[in-house]
Amino acid sequence: MDFNIIRCARAILHVKDLEASRKFYIDALGFIETESDDDHIYLRGLEEHTHHSLVLKKADTPAVEALGYKVSSNQDLEALSRLFEEKGYPTKWLEKGKQHAVGRALRVNDNSGLPLEFFAEMDPVERLLQRYDLYRGSRMQRIDHFNCGVPDVEAAYDFYQKNLGFACSEYTDTPEGDIWAAWLHRKQNVHDVAFMNGFGPRLHHIGFWLPDQLSLIHTCDVLASMGYGEAIERGPGRHGLSNAFFLYLRDPDGHRIELYSGDYLTSDPDFKPIRWDINDPMRQTFWGHAAPDSWFNEASVVLDIFSGEEVIQKPGKLKQHKPTFVI
Amino acid sequence: MDFNIIRCARAILHVKDLEASRKFYIDALGFIETESDDDHIYLRGLEEHTHHSLVLKKADTPAVEALGYKVSSNQDLEALSRLFEEKGYPTKWLEKGKQHAVGRALRVNDNSGLPLEFFAEMDPVERLLQRYDLYRGSRMQRIDHFNCGVPDVEAAYDFYQKNLGFACSEYTDTPEGDIWAAWLHRKQNVHDVAFMNGFGPRLHHIGFWLPDQLSLIHTCDVLASMGYGEAIERGPGRHGLSNAFFLYLRDPDGHRIELYSGDYLTSDPDFKPIRWDINDPMRQTFWGHAAPDSWFNEASVVLDIFSGEEVIQKPGKLKQHKPTFVI
Amino acid sequence: MDFNIIRCARAILHVKDLEASRKFYIDALGFIETESDDDHIYLRGLEEHTHHSLVLKKADTPAVEALGYKVSSNQDLEALSRLFEEKGYPTKWLEKGKQHAVGRALRVNDNSGLPLEFFAEMDPVERLLQRYDLYRGSRMQRIDHFNCGVPDVEAAYDFYQKNLGFACSEYTDTPEGDIWAAWLHRKQNVHDVAFMNGFGPRLHHIGFWLPDQLSLIHTCDVLASMGYGEAIERGPGRHGLSNAFFLYLRDPDGHRIELYSGDYLTSDPDFKPIRWDINDPMRQTFWGHAAPDSWFNEASVVLDIFSGEEVIQKPGKLKQHKPTFVI
Amino acid sequence: MDFNIIRCARAILHVKDLEASRKFYIDALGFIETESDDDHIYLRGLEEHTHHSLVLKKADTPAVEALGYKVSSNQDLEALSRLFEEKGYPTKWLEKGKQHAVGRALRVNDNSGLPLEFFAEMDPVERLLQRYDLYRGSRMQRIDHFNCGVPDVEAAYDFYQKNLGFACSEYTDTPEGDIWAAWLHRKQNVHDVAFMNGFGPRLHHIGFWLPDQLSLIHTCDVLASMGYGEAIERGPGRHGLSNAFFLYLRDPDGHRIELYSGDYLTSDPDFKPIRWDINDPMRQTFWGHAAPDSWFNEASVVLDIFSGEEVIQKPGKLKQHKPTFVI
Repeated sequence: MDFNIIRCARAILHVKDLEASRKFYIDALGFIETESDDDHIYLRGLEEHTHHSLVLKKADTPAVEALGYKVSSNQDLEALSRLFEEKGYPTKWLEKGKQHAVGRALRVNDNSGLPLEFFAEMDPVERLLQRYDLYRGSRMQRIDHFNCGVPDVEAAYDFYQKNLGFACSEYTDTPEGDIWAAWLHRKQNVHDVAFMNGFGPRLHHIGFWLPDQLSLIHTCDVLASMGYGEAIERGPGRHGLSNAFFLYLRDPDGHRIELYSGDYLTSDPDFKPIRWDINDPMRQTFWGHAAPDSWFNEASVVLDIFSGEEVIQKPGKLKQHKPTFVI
Repeated sequence: MDFNIIRCARAILHVKDLEASRKFYIDALGFIETESDDDHIYLRGLEEHTHHSLVLKKADTPAVEALGYKVSSNQDLEALSRLFEEKGYPTKWLEKGKQHAVGRALRVNDNSGLPLEFFAEMDPVERLLQRYDLYRGSRMQRIDHFNCGVPDVEAAYDFYQKNLGFACSEYTDTPEGDIWAAWLHRKQNVHDVAFMNGFGPRLHHIGFWLPDQLSLIHTCDVLASMGYGEAIERGPGRHGLSNAFFLYLRDPDGHRIELYSGDYLTSDPDFKPIRWDINDPMRQTFWGHAAPDSWFNEASVVLDIFSGEEVIQKPGKLKQHKPTFVI
Repeated sequence: MDFNIIRCARAILHVKDLEASRKFYIDALGFIETESDDDHIYLRGLEEHTHHSLVLKKADTPAVEALGYKVSSNQDLEALSRLFEEKGYPTKWLEKGKQHAVGRALRVNDNSGLPLEFFAEMDPVERLLQRYDLYRGSRMQRIDHFNCGVPDVEAAYDFYQKNLGFACSEYTDTPEGDIWAAWLHRKQNVHDVAFMNGFGPRLHHIGFWLPDQLSLIHTCDVLASMGYGEAIERGPGRHGLSNAFFLYLRDPDGHRIELYSGDYLTSDPDFKPIRWDINDPMRQTFWGHAAPDSWFNEASVVLDIFSGEEVIQKPGKLKQHKPTFVI
Repeated sequence: MDFNIIRCARAILHVKDLEASRKFYIDALGFIETESDDDHIYLRGLEEHTHHSLVLKKADTPAVEALGYKVSSNQDLEALSRLFEEKGYPTKWLEKGKQHAVGRALRVNDNSGLPLEFFAEMDPVERLLQRYDLYRGSRMQRIDHFNCGVPDVEAAYDFYQKNLGFACSEYTDTPEGDIWAAWLHRKQNVHDVAFMNGFGPRLHHIGFWLPDQLSLIHTCDVLASMGYGEAIERGPGRHGLSNAFFLYLRDPDGHRIELYSGDYLTSDPDFKPIRWDINDPMRQTFWGHAAPDSWFNEASVVLDIFSGEEVIQKPGKLKQHKPTFVI
């Protein structure tokens, strides 16, 4: 491959009320507000050395405008553009200056219909990792991954591995031998993106990295004390898959945020992807806890990069597995 | 009062398979086995300086033989005996030597029918608090409290406060103004015993103190890795009531154990008991999580101190409150 | 005894610059400011249900005005007054209204010269234990103990046990069989007050209770990020004696504050005080770390309750023990 | 570059008494013993999926035989061999089968004289990350880095970046503008290797990754309870440089082990190396604590790959900086 995707880097979420979002993301979760204007809030974690990893954009309807990946250089953008165009995916350029604090960007709806964005440059900012006096709430560190529901996981799994250079760390398969879900990475931990069989394309959640398990517990305490108890959808608990400690939250617009801490190093090319049986109750929550229905059924819609309209969703290709522990 | 009840001190549980219990309590939860014989295992926590706080006794049916309280001296036992006899509760003496490692003991079924035991002496043993090389699993510290389902909470609440010298730290009441549940203490934390309205007399759970929140999380991890995932009934989570971090487990016989950490100091006579509304969803789990049905419906039967037969149970006096967050 | 001392309850410290103190105690350590005026700041921890546990009072010279204990009732004050007067210690009454937020108070310089204060009433305030949104810095919970340097530990040890009803949890003795240091409690943990052989009477430190070990570590991080690195005098580490996790800080006036977490329950009258050899390197820091010279040599002067002048100090009665690990 | 060094992967340490080492590394630190014979113990962490990351080899004198790096494939070994030979460094091949559990290996003393080893293959083993029932002591996770004292840091810094493809995350420089120390990585965290100005070539320490801060604290407690208090050389504390939480230990042969947790992601090519002034007291320990003399002066000798003799050491090229916080 003549390009290098570094990592998942930012998301642009449409939200209805910036003040409600600010309270949730900053006061409760401890994000740092790098900048904002009447229509946007730019947020980053304490470890991040670039301008933001989350853009909240005022809109009439909650939706996902873009899932952004950082690449090594602007040349990589050209190579990616050629790749997508050759395969029949129309691309769109946003020249430098068009988006705040970000260099030239390439957008494309991928084979599942997810609105991707690639860019090499973002304005540097002060990294606040050692400004412990600013630590609040969740002690938010950095963006970690996207998790998406798609109708055809195997197609996404192939596309990302063969064309985009992702590697698989773990996957779930069915008794019929189909890949139900897959965790794919560019940076050296469990994932930058995961795909799960289901109605889609939709964004199931954005994962953010926290420094330790107690920060997740404290997040629950803080949310409850602020009246956000209902924002806690699932967890805290231990994932079987990834071994991370997790907590799923719903923001004021219903976007799902995962707080995530402590997976493992995936640097080795001879690491054999870990297979999980879809009927293994320890796969999702290692302790065997079931997830609520909303976690299975609800997710954020995504937008077409050209029309700005919601991308039409299709049901998951694989037959729905029950009982309780099916993703 | 001419006696001084120090604290909840030990429980005697009937279990069907000592080996199954040993694996659960020692290998998974990290209890220290002080001693055992063919019919008993005597367990203690790392902080405890007396012989045991839990006796597992081989039997055909799981049940609770006694809930033991430590008193200041053997004179206190005489005073307690007089009190109960005067009030019409027949008592029974177990002279020193009759029970292993324990001095003279007084037994009585209390006004709810719970089989109480009082004693002043127990053999001292080496305290292992600083033997960190022996810390395993949950890092079990010490016994903390009993929680009992009784048909008439208000009667129990009155009896323990007026006659036995307990103080109330927190309580739940209903819209009708009845006390639904009460947390009562002799030692200076939230409780030595709690009573909840419901089918009873039954032991709902025994609470054991752990040193920190991460020990509860690690317990879940250890249990899951040993195949005990189903033993995790509820939690981990934060109690609204007591502010403790909690985890509820079911042992191989179905007895419920609570791991409990981090309530608060109740030394002050002017501390005003905290009132919780039964319909406040933060009361049980501060984060708003619901408890499973089994947690509401299942509990351990208790035995008559004379006959050794199960004490007949009656339903809770107060009308059952729904929705989800009752009790 | 016809009185009941509940616990160590508040200290009054003279400080030179209230703004400097505010920044240290509130911004860094996370104390709650209940109230303040031109000459005082009243601080409390998150768990405390009464007005304050620390009074910072503007003065020209740093000093300790009073070490306050809470008693059960105002009748207890009378009994204490009689006790001290009979033994030849002049007492002083501060009637209700004379001190902000506190009821009638009795002051006396004890047999070591330490300025004690006893009171039964303090204004109740909202307890913020479950206001997790207000947790900052150290997550300060509550006052725990006083530690004092005195010339004659054995005299203090006897006075507090025989006359004031304290119990000993742990003590250090010398090869000559003298008590070098003693930890004495009324509430049910390791101490409300400790005495150490040395130049005195002086206040070595005030101990405050934190919820867990990570709060002490985070305190170091926060202090360092605020430029307070030099305020960290010793630790974090594990005490052999008490088993608590500790951190010693020096406030802007040089007063020493200990952050302290996780000792053990001392409810039982048959608990045998733990003896430590003064030459055991694990006694102070269980891990064997040495303390800096300043920790041994420096402490806060205390004031005469009548004159307000510094109480004259005398050297410790026992010969100074070396090497490194002598208190 | 026509090769890809993945990460620091194993060390071979000569030790005098395998039983003494076993007790320290396994009983206290919680390493997993994969295998052993009369002359070797092969150890791995709970996360590791290959045979070992530490080989303890019985010998008369403590020393470092090899610092091993994993590469992508056996072809990479050929390319590395050519590189070193071309630059005048004699190399040595250890064919597959020559060393237990490891494939073909290339050894070379690098430009500082450090005995490097490169290999692509190691026998896979069961990863025990989710066998929480086996977690003991430190909960050892995986090898993280080597730290070496060398006479000419700038030469090492150049060689590893220009010839071996390492990137610099952080560095220390002197008032004269010389690089005093440098942290270099291949995998995406702060380092696989660091070089510090000083007597060398020597191995200052091997860093192992732990899951969280409390595991370091528990390590101190466990070591102390086993009589290993003197093995704790420095810490626990927070590094300014790397932001990791650290603890330095000395094994029974004096080899220094660092327990290390929580640095940050270094995936981005535009991450600007962080510069630290050698006179900044927060550089080493963020909290300002000084390190003991032994930490500055003592380190493990390394062996010549051909002769097996100790590589002759030279003093650091840069003039020694004082005061306390040098290196």
